[in-house]
Amino acid sequence: MSTVCAVSTPLAEGGIAVIRISGEDAINAAGRVFTPFGDKSVSEMQGYTCAYGRVIDPATGETVDDAVLTVFRAPHSYTGEDTAEISCHGGVYVAKRVLRLCLENGCWQADRGEFTKRAFLNGKLSLTQAEAVMDTISARGEASLRSARLIREGRLFSRIDGIKQELVTLLGKLAAWVDYPEEELPEITSEELKASLYDACEKLSKVLREYDCGMVFRTGIDTVIAGKPNVGKSTLMNTLLGYERSIVTEAAGTTRDVIEETVKLGELELKLSDTAGIRETGDAVEKIGVSLARKRLADCALVIAVFDTSSPLDSEDRELLGYLRELNKKLIIVLNKSDLGSKVDASEFEKLNARILELSAKNGEGVSELTEAVSQLFGADEYDPASTVFANERQHRCAQEAYDALKQALAAAEAEETFDAVTVMTDLAASRLMELTGEKATEAVVDEVFSKFCVGK
Amino acid sequence: MSTVCAVSTPLAEGGIAVIRISGEDAINAAGRVFTPFGDKSVSEMQGYTCAYGRVIDPATGETVDDAVLTVFRAPHSYTGEDTAEISCHGGVYVAKRVLRLCLENGCWQADRGEFTKRAFLNGKLSLTQAEAVMDTISARGEASLRSARLIREGRLFSRIDGIKQELVTLLGKLAAWVDYPEEELPEITSEELKASLYDACEKLSKVLREYDCGMVFRTGIDTVIAGKPNVGKSTLMNTLLGYERSIVTEAAGTTRDVIEETVKLGELELKLSDTAGIRETGDAVEKIGVSLARKRLADCALVIAVFDTSSPLDSEDRELLGYLRELNKKLIIVLNKSDLGSKVDASEFEKLNARILELSAKNGEGVSELTEAVSQLFGADEYDPASTVFANERQHRCAQEAYDALKQALAAAEAEETFDAVTVMTDLAASRLMELTGEKATEAVVDEVFSKFCVGK
Repeated sequence: MSTVCAVSTPLAEGGIAVIRISGEDAINAAGRVFTPFGDKSVSEMQGYTCAYGRVIDPATGETVDDAVLTVFRAPHSYTGEDTAEISCHGGVYVAKRVLRLCLENGCWQADRGEFTKRAFLNGKLSLTQAEAVMDTISARGEASLRSARLIREGRLFSRIDGIKQELVTLLGKLAAWVDYPEEELPEITSEELKASLYDACEKLSKVLREYDCGMVFRTGIDTVIAGKPNVGKSTLMNTLLGYERSIVTEAAGTTRDVIEETVKLGELELKLSDTAGIRETGDAVEKIGVSLARKRLADCALVIAVFDTSSPLDSEDRELLGYLRELNKKLIIVLNKSDLGSKVDASEFEKLNARILELSAKNGEGVSELTEAVSQLFGADEYDPASTVFANERQHRCAQEAYDALKQALAAAEAEETFDAVTVMTDLAASRLMELTGEKATEAVVDEVFSKFCVGK
Repeated sequence: MSTVCAVSTPLAEGGIAVIRISGEDAINAAGRVFTPFGDKSVSEMQGYTCAYGRVIDPATGETVDDAVLTVFRAPHSYTGEDTAEISCHGGVYVAKRVLRLCLENGCWQADRGEFTKRAFLNGKLSLTQAEAVMDTISARGEASLRSARLIREGRLFSRIDGIKQELVTLLGKLAAWVDYPEEELPEITSEELKASLYDACEKLSKVLREYDCGMVFRTGIDTVIAGKPNVGKSTLMNTLLGYERSIVTEAAGTTRDVIEETVKLGELELKLSDTAGIRETGDAVEKIGVSLARKRLADCALVIAVFDTSSPLDSEDRELLGYLRELNKKLIIVLNKSDLGSKVDASEFEKLNARILELSAKNGEGVSELTEAVSQLFGADEYDPASTVFANERQHRCAQEAYDALKQALAAAEAEETFDAVTVMTDLAASRLMELTGEKATEAVVDEVFSKFCVGK
């Protein structure tokens, strides 16, 4: 592979800029543009040592900048290749000037993510670990930083690789049976086969559930507070927020627009939308609110439906209940104003797959029960924040496709069909898992992954 | 001095972020947050070596990131103090997270320019060299980068310091004479004194001239092309630019607005304004042009006044000549349309301190003579681009004040006054030069200098 270079620090004014060179000729190239102040030449420098000196243009003999050169020798470097890093003054022009000098002296410009791609191609990182490098860089908080680190440390890789190993072993047995059915090979019974497939399915399903849960932890839960006007939606929202956010009045239909707030409920973050209700209305302004509310309901991950128990349910409440039944979202029914004594018949909610809570939004009673219900609904109770989740949609898609294929393999096995169908689907699942880790990713997939990186990484 | 830390790379997403720690406790502090993968502990690391390892929060035992730690030991570091640099993944959150960890483990947040300030306070850099660090970072082109480097290498310092040394020697002789006039001390004659002062003046004057010339090279020459309508100003401008920029017609007063273009003339860059002429006019639109032209003339560094020699000078030409005489700017008189034979009396220009050139804007004849004239006027011929120029207005002001004081000292010496006046002014000049290099700069001056730096440098 050619020797490449790039400015590895952001191109803006700062204290230090680092120009990284990697490849077979990296240390020679560095030696052509960098002259240490001491007696030792660059080629004599050991790995993991630095030297103070000057970046000098060999064509003109002119000094460009003072700098510190750090040398890493293959395979003990980030890329696994010989690597040289020139730390010069942190200016935009000076960094570009040093880069140009490297380009003029035997290096090629590195593509986006090329250093990490080389680390992957040289076997220093799996594809998931490489992707986690990018997640580490783009992390905006503790949870995403931690998750990226765990993936970088190989936890996701080893889990996925473990499942893949099982499938490969299983495929070996199936192949023996298919290719040499007449020989007396160690037989795989239908029961063993089903058990193995079921086990792999379970493990993969757990990884997928953790992804969903991890996303919930990382990005929060998109939540809509639904309910007809004046049942106490705004009061509930304000209770959760701990301050007066939406205007709460006694007149129905006050909250005309979708109001969004983020509230921390236990370990989880809820992105709350307080809506104008979903009833048909003649009021033009309210109509916009209703249409927004319906859209939000269709998009959200959790609905908290609020009903006023101080009076019996009316047609509008029932319209909402009917709507929610069809929606089929994670649902919590809040029976508000429970302090006033309920006039609502609990059987009205029976046909819904929902948690039902009594709550007094005004007094804040029942909020801890609501927290608990949300936590249970999203599996947050069993979720270990230190467990690994996928870094991105690509990995999730691979795992999902592997899971779907395994389900089909299992179905075929259960239908007592020939092992051919089972083999094809199991093989597909194994391929998808190898694509996930990068073990068998196509060049296009690899290119796609690294195209999302920044130059210099 | 306390141990300080800062993110030394720009806070944006990139491949690498560097957190720098400097001070007595730097290596211990690094050891508290960084654990090498190898056997060697951080405290055992030699200067100019690095180690790959993990940034770990000692309070929780949790890994924050993988990183490379580089150690520099006093006095062989940028600041002259023990220094540790943690190169972690180049994300904003992760860099801040590592910084926070350092702050929690015995380091203080570094102020703007604090590392360079410490280098100055520890005698690693003079004040001019420290200022040149900032210029290196903010350099946007080769000339400014080179000039910053030369100052960083100490050229300006040694020139200024040389002049200061001479003044200090002179002050010693003057003091001996003033304090012990009756004793038979080696006498300084009035002639020797004047010669010394004159010599110092000359040297300082040369440095000041180079500053002006350097600024001209760095920023270009603000130039106005003046002349009544239709003498060929626009044609001249277009000839210099090499293409049709302003609308050139036969009707007088066509160029209504101030047109600005940058043109390279030999080694110099001219920022050209083509103006509407300066005659009094009734035309409202033209009036605006005239007022703009007068303002530009007052502000510019060079005037190229164009006259049409195909007809004798008229009152408007003479009005311009009168105006230019009062303006007292660097002036080049261009006698245009020289190809048509001159009808202008050369004596008309005698009272002006100007270069006079014949030129045919239309044919491009005489342009090389114009180039030569500009070059001579700005001393560009003798200017060595590798010579040092001041980095900034502060340094220039110090040198100018030193020069002014020396001129007064010389005047006092020439007036054969007592040596007291000479001593006071020479002392003032020496002080200003010591302020320039930072040898005797007040804390306020030093603080002011470093307040312009970025954090992390």
